[in-house]
Amino acid sequence: MNPSGKHFSSIAGLVLTYFTSSAAAAALEALPAQAPVPKDNPMTPAKIELGKQLFFDPRLSVDGTVSCNSCHNVMSSGTDSRSVSVGVSGQKGGRSAPTVWNAAFHTVQFWDGRAATLEDQAKGPILNSIEMGMPNAEAVVKRLSAIPGYKKQFAAVFGGSDALSYDNIAKAIATYERTLLTPDSAFDRYLRGDKKALPDNAQRGMKLVEEVGCTGCHTGPIFAGPATLAMGEGFFQKFPTFVGSKYDAAYGLLLDEGRASTTKKIEDKNMWRVPTWRNVALTAPYFHNGSVKTLDEAVRVMAKTQLNKELTDDQVKDIVAFLDSLTGKFPAQTLPMLPDLPNDSLLVGEAKSFN
Amino acid sequence: MNPSGKHFSSIAGLVLTYFTSSAAAAALEALPAQAPVPKDNPMTPAKIELGKQLFFDPRLSVDGTVSCNSCHNVMSSGTDSRSVSVGVSGQKGGRSAPTVWNAAFHTVQFWDGRAATLEDQAKGPILNSIEMGMPNAEAVVKRLSAIPGYKKQFAAVFGGSDALSYDNIAKAIATYERTLLTPDSAFDRYLRGDKKALPDNAQRGMKLVEEVGCTGCHTGPIFAGPATLAMGEGFFQKFPTFVGSKYDAAYGLLLDEGRASTTKKIEDKNMWRVPTWRNVALTAPYFHNGSVKTLDEAVRVMAKTQLNKELTDDQVKDIVAFLDSLTGKFPAQTLPMLPDLPNDSLLVGEAKSFN
Repeated sequence: MNPSGKHFSSIAGLVLTYFTSSAAAAALEALPAQAPVPKDNPMTPAKIELGKQLFFDPRLSVDGTVSCNSCHNVMSSGTDSRSVSVGVSGQKGGRSAPTVWNAAFHTVQFWDGRAATLEDQAKGPILNSIEMGMPNAEAVVKRLSAIPGYKKQFAAVFGGSDALSYDNIAKAIATYERTLLTPDSAFDRYLRGDKKALPDNAQRGMKLVEEVGCTGCHTGPIFAGPATLAMGEGFFQKFPTFVGSKYDAAYGLLLDEGRASTTKKIEDKNMWRVPTWRNVALTAPYFHNGSVKTLDEAVRVMAKTQLNKELTDDQVKDIVAFLDSLTGKFPAQTLPMLPDLPNDSLLVGEAKSFN
Repeated sequence: MNPSGKHFSSIAGLVLTYFTSSAAAAALEALPAQAPVPKDNPMTPAKIELGKQLFFDPRLSVDGTVSCNSCHNVMSSGTDSRSVSVGVSGQKGGRSAPTVWNAAFHTVQFWDGRAATLEDQAKGPILNSIEMGMPNAEAVVKRLSAIPGYKKQFAAVFGGSDALSYDNIAKAIATYERTLLTPDSAFDRYLRGDKKALPDNAQRGMKLVEEVGCTGCHTGPIFAGPATLAMGEGFFQKFPTFVGSKYDAAYGLLLDEGRASTTKKIEDKNMWRVPTWRNVALTAPYFHNGSVKTLDEAVRVMAKTQLNKELTDDQVKDIVAFLDSLTGKFPAQTLPMLPDLPNDSLLVGEAKSFN
């Protein structure tokens, strides 16, 4: 009868398959020292620096108030601590901002996986009317081309007559994002042999996430899917898998169609990219709609909706202790200085309505 | 007849007095290496670091979207490149954000000088309903007190049972702001003896600003008033002094009462703090209402409205060249990391309306 019913059981089967196979045993991986880099966008120091400037530059938004960093704050957890983000003119987005830290390890981007790469992802929010609100790619290129310091850097980094292009803006931003890695969590140190790095409760939690079945999906280097996946090959899961718990209504879990909103396929209804566990202690509130305030409640919700299990309070505490151990070290960074347009205004007169 | 008429001529007299006295000759001063520091708020490295975190922390705004840095961007000119700033929920302010760079040398703060110190200034925008929108000082203290990393730092920096107070938040922010100085402009190097630091046109402009009379007011270490003024003792000027030019209507110069909006005194109508020239090349658009797009037009407007003079295009170019030479060196800074609230949401549930 219900097409999602069939899908539902196949997904539950997938979870069990993972859990009972060797995947669970292989689930524990330290964070690699470097993120995958696409061949057509090699990393260079100058490109990283340019990308950092762009990431922090609010002039990439129509009214000069919203930068990538506004919602993906790298001075913090790589998100904005809000349920959903606020874009230009106080408009609210529909989904919670995913963290940019370690996003380079996700094999697809956005909650619904609609971008295959960081480059593709970076092009989205700038032109989204409720995020950064630029009218089109040409307007972005025109605006940045007015800034001598950007023109010069794009020419040096990309070369050619079309160096300052929308594609290259995205390439530079993605390159900077590939430096946003948080190695050396307590968990990583434990895996490398420092058995004292994890307190007892975190060690119990580490066993529990395998026994309960969480690592059926939360596996791989960032606990967001198998390490064997290639870039562009997303790892999705139905959420909630077990429909009917009290959480569906309490947290509005069925209100967003998830991946189906992009693919328009019925089998993608309520399917979501499996999110990372890295630094999850810092990225509250939780889930695609930011509806769950605390990590312990998020753990309870996931056990019930994905594995149909009720955890004891002690189990929840131990799992949270393990998740806390996945908070990595945030690398020291210099504050970028954004290139200026001397003696003139970039924003005034372009869109009168916001001045 | 007109009370401002009397005032107007006395102000014009003041300008002439300054210009014909030795003040003009004394107008050219290099930027001091350090800003004045109040006795009750000494600078320490830990206080600077705490103040920097607070300056960049959007959680000081009601919905977690606006930080001090949103409008006073230290990755750039210390302002936001907009005519007027945007606060929480897309609300627009009434005046253009003054630069935070070298603000520590201003003897009063805000365009209308309504705060005597950086400490007093810092307390304003956080509680302003159209800027950061926190309901009251207690709510700010309560929110920050929930963050272990802030509690710890305030205790270490200020000590005592009331270490995390609204006063101390302002003290920390002001302390960080006293580090935001831009020394070593071409002009400063010239004054220190490097006669090649200024190109010919800038040297001509330097003479012109004295001859034309600009340095009657734009004097002292940041060209915002005599160096002899004490902290809290503002240097104000009527703008426009010469009412009746085409610029009054073109740029809405009489629409804002200026200092009278604070003091409620008729003699303060259209009186404004004299703004700094330091880095003025980077702080377009210009004036209290951000109505003037370019620096050359700002120079023309000032000559006409303040000194009743029409400058030639060559004079304007030379003066702009001199003003360009006042762009200083922006010190390298590390990106602050904001303390977290692990496993919980700071913003969710406090003000449901914005989630």
